[in-house]
Amino acid sequence: MVPRYSRPAMSAIWEPEARYRIWFEIEAHATEKLGELGVVPASAAKALWDWWATNPEIDVPAIDAIEAVTKHDVIAFLTWVAEQVGDEARFMHQGMTSSDVLDTTLAVQLARSADILLEDLDHLLAAIKRRAEEHKYTPTIGRSHGIHAEPVTFGLKLAQAYAEFDRCKKRLIAAREEIATCAISGAVGTFANIDPSVEAHVAEKLGLEIEPISTQVIPRDRHAMFFSTLAVIAGSIERVAVEVRHLQRTEVLEAEEYFSPGQKGSSAMPHKRNPILTENLTGQARMIRGYAMPALENVALWHERDISHSSVERFIGPDATITLDFALARLTGVIDKLLIYPERMQKNMDRMGGLIHSQRVLLALTQAGVSREDAYRLVQRNAMKVWESDGALALLDLLKADEEVTAALSNEEIEAKFDLDYHFKQVDHIFSRVFG
Amino acid sequence: MVPRYSRPAMSAIWEPEARYRIWFEIEAHATEKLGELGVVPASAAKALWDWWATNPEIDVPAIDAIEAVTKHDVIAFLTWVAEQVGDEARFMHQGMTSSDVLDTTLAVQLARSADILLEDLDHLLAAIKRRAEEHKYTPTIGRSHGIHAEPVTFGLKLAQAYAEFDRCKKRLIAAREEIATCAISGAVGTFANIDPSVEAHVAEKLGLEIEPISTQVIPRDRHAMFFSTLAVIAGSIERVAVEVRHLQRTEVLEAEEYFSPGQKGSSAMPHKRNPILTENLTGQARMIRGYAMPALENVALWHERDISHSSVERFIGPDATITLDFALARLTGVIDKLLIYPERMQKNMDRMGGLIHSQRVLLALTQAGVSREDAYRLVQRNAMKVWESDGALALLDLLKADEEVTAALSNEEIEAKFDLDYHFKQVDHIFSRVFG
Amino acid sequence: MVPRYSRPAMSAIWEPEARYRIWFEIEAHATEKLGELGVVPASAAKALWDWWATNPEIDVPAIDAIEAVTKHDVIAFLTWVAEQVGDEARFMHQGMTSSDVLDTTLAVQLARSADILLEDLDHLLAAIKRRAEEHKYTPTIGRSHGIHAEPVTFGLKLAQAYAEFDRCKKRLIAAREEIATCAISGAVGTFANIDPSVEAHVAEKLGLEIEPISTQVIPRDRHAMFFSTLAVIAGSIERVAVEVRHLQRTEVLEAEEYFSPGQKGSSAMPHKRNPILTENLTGQARMIRGYAMPALENVALWHERDISHSSVERFIGPDATITLDFALARLTGVIDKLLIYPERMQKNMDRMGGLIHSQRVLLALTQAGVSREDAYRLVQRNAMKVWESDGALALLDLLKADEEVTAALSNEEIEAKFDLDYHFKQVDHIFSRVFG
Amino acid sequence: MVPRYSRPAMSAIWEPEARYRIWFEIEAHATEKLGELGVVPASAAKALWDWWATNPEIDVPAIDAIEAVTKHDVIAFLTWVAEQVGDEARFMHQGMTSSDVLDTTLAVQLARSADILLEDLDHLLAAIKRRAEEHKYTPTIGRSHGIHAEPVTFGLKLAQAYAEFDRCKKRLIAAREEIATCAISGAVGTFANIDPSVEAHVAEKLGLEIEPISTQVIPRDRHAMFFSTLAVIAGSIERVAVEVRHLQRTEVLEAEEYFSPGQKGSSAMPHKRNPILTENLTGQARMIRGYAMPALENVALWHERDISHSSVERFIGPDATITLDFALARLTGVIDKLLIYPERMQKNMDRMGGLIHSQRVLLALTQAGVSREDAYRLVQRNAMKVWESDGALALLDLLKADEEVTAALSNEEIEAKFDLDYHFKQVDHIFSRVFG
Repeated sequence: MVPRYSRPAMSAIWEPEARYRIWFEIEAHATEKLGELGVVPASAAKALWDWWATNPEIDVPAIDAIEAVTKHDVIAFLTWVAEQVGDEARFMHQGMTSSDVLDTTLAVQLARSADILLEDLDHLLAAIKRRAEEHKYTPTIGRSHGIHAEPVTFGLKLAQAYAEFDRCKKRLIAAREEIATCAISGAVGTFANIDPSVEAHVAEKLGLEIEPISTQVIPRDRHAMFFSTLAVIAGSIERVAVEVRHLQRTEVLEAEEYFSPGQKGSSAMPHKRNPILTENLTGQARMIRGYAMPALENVALWHERDISHSSVERFIGPDATITLDFALARLTGVIDKLLIYPERMQKNMDRMGGLIHSQRVLLALTQAGVSREDAYRLVQRNAMKVWESDGALALLDLLKADEEVTAALSNEEIEAKFDLDYHFKQVDHIFSRVFG
Repeated sequence: MVPRYSRPAMSAIWEPEARYRIWFEIEAHATEKLGELGVVPASAAKALWDWWATNPEIDVPAIDAIEAVTKHDVIAFLTWVAEQVGDEARFMHQGMTSSDVLDTTLAVQLARSADILLEDLDHLLAAIKRRAEEHKYTPTIGRSHGIHAEPVTFGLKLAQAYAEFDRCKKRLIAAREEIATCAISGAVGTFANIDPSVEAHVAEKLGLEIEPISTQVIPRDRHAMFFSTLAVIAGSIERVAVEVRHLQRTEVLEAEEYFSPGQKGSSAMPHKRNPILTENLTGQARMIRGYAMPALENVALWHERDISHSSVERFIGPDATITLDFALARLTGVIDKLLIYPERMQKNMDRMGGLIHSQRVLLALTQAGVSREDAYRLVQRNAMKVWESDGALALLDLLKADEEVTAALSNEEIEAKFDLDYHFKQVDHIFSRVFG
Repeated sequence: MVPRYSRPAMSAIWEPEARYRIWFEIEAHATEKLGELGVVPASAAKALWDWWATNPEIDVPAIDAIEAVTKHDVIAFLTWVAEQVGDEARFMHQGMTSSDVLDTTLAVQLARSADILLEDLDHLLAAIKRRAEEHKYTPTIGRSHGIHAEPVTFGLKLAQAYAEFDRCKKRLIAAREEIATCAISGAVGTFANIDPSVEAHVAEKLGLEIEPISTQVIPRDRHAMFFSTLAVIAGSIERVAVEVRHLQRTEVLEAEEYFSPGQKGSSAMPHKRNPILTENLTGQARMIRGYAMPALENVALWHERDISHSSVERFIGPDATITLDFALARLTGVIDKLLIYPERMQKNMDRMGGLIHSQRVLLALTQAGVSREDAYRLVQRNAMKVWESDGALALLDLLKADEEVTAALSNEEIEAKFDLDYHFKQVDHIFSRVFG
Repeated sequence: MVPRYSRPAMSAIWEPEARYRIWFEIEAHATEKLGELGVVPASAAKALWDWWATNPEIDVPAIDAIEAVTKHDVIAFLTWVAEQVGDEARFMHQGMTSSDVLDTTLAVQLARSADILLEDLDHLLAAIKRRAEEHKYTPTIGRSHGIHAEPVTFGLKLAQAYAEFDRCKKRLIAAREEIATCAISGAVGTFANIDPSVEAHVAEKLGLEIEPISTQVIPRDRHAMFFSTLAVIAGSIERVAVEVRHLQRTEVLEAEEYFSPGQKGSSAMPHKRNPILTENLTGQARMIRGYAMPALENVALWHERDISHSSVERFIGPDATITLDFALARLTGVIDKLLIYPERMQKNMDRMGGLIHSQRVLLALTQAGVSREDAYRLVQRNAMKVWESDGALALLDLLKADEEVTAALSNEEIEAKFDLDYHFKQVDHIFSRVFG
């Protein structure tokens, strides 16, 4: 976790305090149910909740000090709670194993993280939608291979991003569902010493599903899927970030990240306005993507469990969620305040001498009876001249002067193929597909 | 793709012939709709389908020869088809761009691959279920950290695998849905030269959904999700493979891969029977996992598209699906024929002098009023003696001889804690959770 | 391995025939030494080499048929050789284990692959050097963040690539050294049944170093290092590929991949000339990078060896080397024939109204006694006007009209800061650093 | 970075204070040389060093506050230093660009990290060597595929680890050399505004090599190689960690991590002694491996530079080095205090009824004139009986009772093949290869 790439709400989930609070709730809810079942005195849960009602501070250093001796974090925590609550606390954790607490806690943390990320996605989607509608019909050149292809609108670019993040949202909802399970099944998952109803009770109280079968641990394929999903979302962030970086290039300059007063682009070159936010996002996407690999390697734990996943999760639990939260918020800001230059878009589109209309002429020729091969040859020979003139020649002029072309199409017919609006007749249809 | 790790049905999907057949179908369906719309003569589609009805062979080398000149695969194919079908063929591909064909084809290939993988998963699930029921109550030691913990049943181990692959199936169904989209939207996705109804028609004919918004290409976040899902499945394969490898270890030997007559385990050591199938699966899992990374990097294409994803997909399209198909089938075979040794399981379980019952004694002591700390200390001091005796001492004997223990528990009470069936009382409940 | 991304010399290394030939040589050399040591009759090696001298064809299907029964590749091969050579062949493989043959063979294959890759790098370096010298003083704008920064020369861009691939060559030489070891140490590496002098003999004959300590297998950290090195080289290929893709963008168009007559850039848009080779290389780089991960996971084999590395290496051995060979050759071709447009470079450089000289003015102001903060402010306020004018205004004019600036610098002094050659005075020095 | 997986010396390198101190030194050394060259007054460097000699505290929050306004870290730092030093400070950074400082600083940090890691490796090598010599002739079974193969010694296992980490050390020395370069070459690396002698001066003072050609940034292939090398080292750590985990398994128990008094293996099962340190190392290895991927993706920066690498390096710079430092130290501790049980090793070796000697009998039979095929068959049929008896039968007895065997070998000859020392005759030779 890099502090400058973290936001407080998400970071708080991963603080020791937050973790211990979830631990307590799991233990207290479990004790409650055990009390109902008559396994422990009903007074035990009451004592725990009474203490909790005092809104006690969690003394992390004190717990750490105990752990330094026991070398076992859950035992250290239970010992500390017992010191606070007194004798009744000895009924806590009856029939449970550490992982019951740890894995269910991780489920709560990841589910809460996912909730924040889903909110982030909603904000991002809203920002994209707003700008998409604003620029629904702003013409700009579509580029394949970095080369001018045919016209699109800037709104379409944003609609594509909207559709992509909307898919990301669905994926994250599915990943959240997968990860939000509760396991209170004892040392090897047999419920030998604890009734399954305890698990059901804790699950319900914490808003989780029960884990159908656990083996001390919740199976790590769930987590692999979760972190892989974050990696896919990071890929989509990178896509938009790279788009902005391209658009801000000096020669393109169709859009720019907002540049605040007082900001300096370069210590040496005062003229620079750099797309540093989206470059920054590009790097963060690499990291979040990278975190999927150890999560995938974590799946193949030995037998009923080994603990090799744990050190991995101490990194990627906070790092992947905190960084993705930051990245989504940063991207939302970029989109929200993006400086968009329609005039420059038009200017760029015009610079290729009308080459972007070549396909329509090709189609018109074939519809006028020219064979596809011939039509392609006719258009290409004129297009190449324009290309080589670096936009000084105009395709329209050359076509009108090409006798093989004019043998098939009149000047009016040729001119009609150079109409920009022709390309946008389905924009509204596409918008209705994307935004409903 | 490694031939020895491939099976014919899956490989066939990725052969040039199969690809060209899908290309043709897309082009012919599109021409059909274009005919209905009056964009091209209705006779064009008829000519195509008539030729197709002759069940023509696809002359791959001839197409390759054309591509060597045009350096463009779709144009090469269209040219070849035109040579076969004649003049009417010139109406093909009207208003379309190569990617309309290529990306929709990839969608068909991946969807078909997913169908095979889903069948594979069904076979695997059936094999696991059969063996799980067979060994529902076969006692075996549960291990955490590779160390004996408490008893489980072999059926539970398999039930866990069942639940995991059942989740994998759900994920793959979702991934298949994501990938099965059709885009016929023209050069930059604006439908400038082709009506959206053509896309809808082709989609319906091929059993695909329409891609709500494409940009010449179908967005690669879909593919990233698909290949990431395969990676997660590979992780689950690895988990079971590693389990079998552990069980077959000389000192454990609770299960073995089937060893066929005539098989030689080692050229030098005739006594060897090695878990080579599951080791092999472990390596394959690494590969399939590795293929997720380039798929994730493919998301951030430039602007409306660049073609950097294409070379990646020429590798991972076939390699990931073919290898996963092979791996699932191999794992199914391993499970199906797995040699399972209940006697050895019992023997291993017995070798620790009853240590596996330590928790129950701990709980009994606390329930008898001993503080948790004291109870832990009492059990641990006896357990450590057993541990250090390498199983020569029995925990039950030591406990009965420990005055602090017997002060709290009678001999009968202690003995009752060493009952194996106690651990299996919820097996049926867990099975009902997993198998319904 | 994708056939279209492979070249014959590299592919041949990975053909079954090539592998069997190496197997034979290892076995025959070993038998030779065993003969010298008196362990087997000297006639055995003679019989093997006599047969070999007849230049026999390797009957791969026959060997495959035997393997189908024995399920062991080395035994199948030995059986087949014995069928050819006769009785004397039974002395082959004495005291050896399969891995002695397999791992040493892989070492030979990887070393030979590395030799081809080193040649590839030499060709690439030569092409880069030739073009670098050609364009040593061709001015072009240097860009940071995609934004114009200050002038460089196109030769410098290429010199940077040269230095990078020169480092790659050094790394590959080191990786080749690491991988080129011979292990003939028996079933668990103890030389229990074979004298270490056999290993030394085979190593010498095959041009390998002895593996100081093997454990049936050659340790896989060597291979992890090898494939990681290929991944780094792939990264450098990607860097240059991305550079070309940027330069070919419509708005930039400072360089282009060679476009051959008859080539079609797009089936729909006849005007397109796309950087498809470098996009293709970008994807291949992702693959080669991806292959490093399973190689790294292969290191942690169990105990003296497990065979999980083997299926991985069946993929990445050929795939990573063949693809990298292809990519290096393709990049060499791209560089060799790259169309370079100095006029366009100049035109692009001029379009920012002289902003690229802002730093020199800043320095001049501070040297004239203006505080750094003030100087930055003065230059930035004029630079921002130029920036916002989209190059319509000239920085030089604005500075001359800024009284705070002219209070510190004369017009002549300001003009002197707009000299292009000023930036190139160290080009020769840098070239001497890079090219010696 | 996870605090519990970090050690102070390595962490300190990555603290803001440490970074600012290096920044200052670079700026001051550069100013010094610029003074010599007459570019700035010689008094400037003196003022800087005089202030430095007062051992001033670095006021990180103050610098942060300035950065919050300027949004540029180097400018913020320079501003703060100017506030401390006064007017002479304005000559700092003359002709330099931020990256000159940032990239050279990263080089210093990575070089210092490498120095610590090299020390770590020395400690690890020393620990391994000590234990290897201690157990040079401790017999233990060699295992391939997890199955008993033939005897080795525990010293050989450790010697293998020694050789592997010795290679790691060589790789890290090479990686350190690669990374330790200094670039002070200005905005796009042309030295337009700064003489190359400044770079040479700073390089010398900081113990770095000059970067032959930089482009504002030091090329990232160097860093990719560095982090890939760390990933390979992590793989070797994982290998040893997995070995220990296997050896500690209940059924094997040939070695154990040291278990300190007061330690609790499980909150639920007092008898547990788990290999948690090596499991922990396994997970850390996954993380360090994972960090190589974004480092590899960082290579392909755009043109002369983009800043996408920066966010990646804020993570992996500290995280990979701090975690590897911790992991090496932890592994050293594990090896140093490893509980090793030779008696158990012998016991395990004996449990297979002498199967581990099967190869020697095979060889003896062939040397006695039996065909290899027949010999294999004879040994295998007896071996399989032993295998299936679970060690109850002894191979020696069965062979003596097999008439086909005794037709070729006398009882004495057979018995001679069951001698353990036979396997260890080359141990000293191997040790001399490894330890010199």
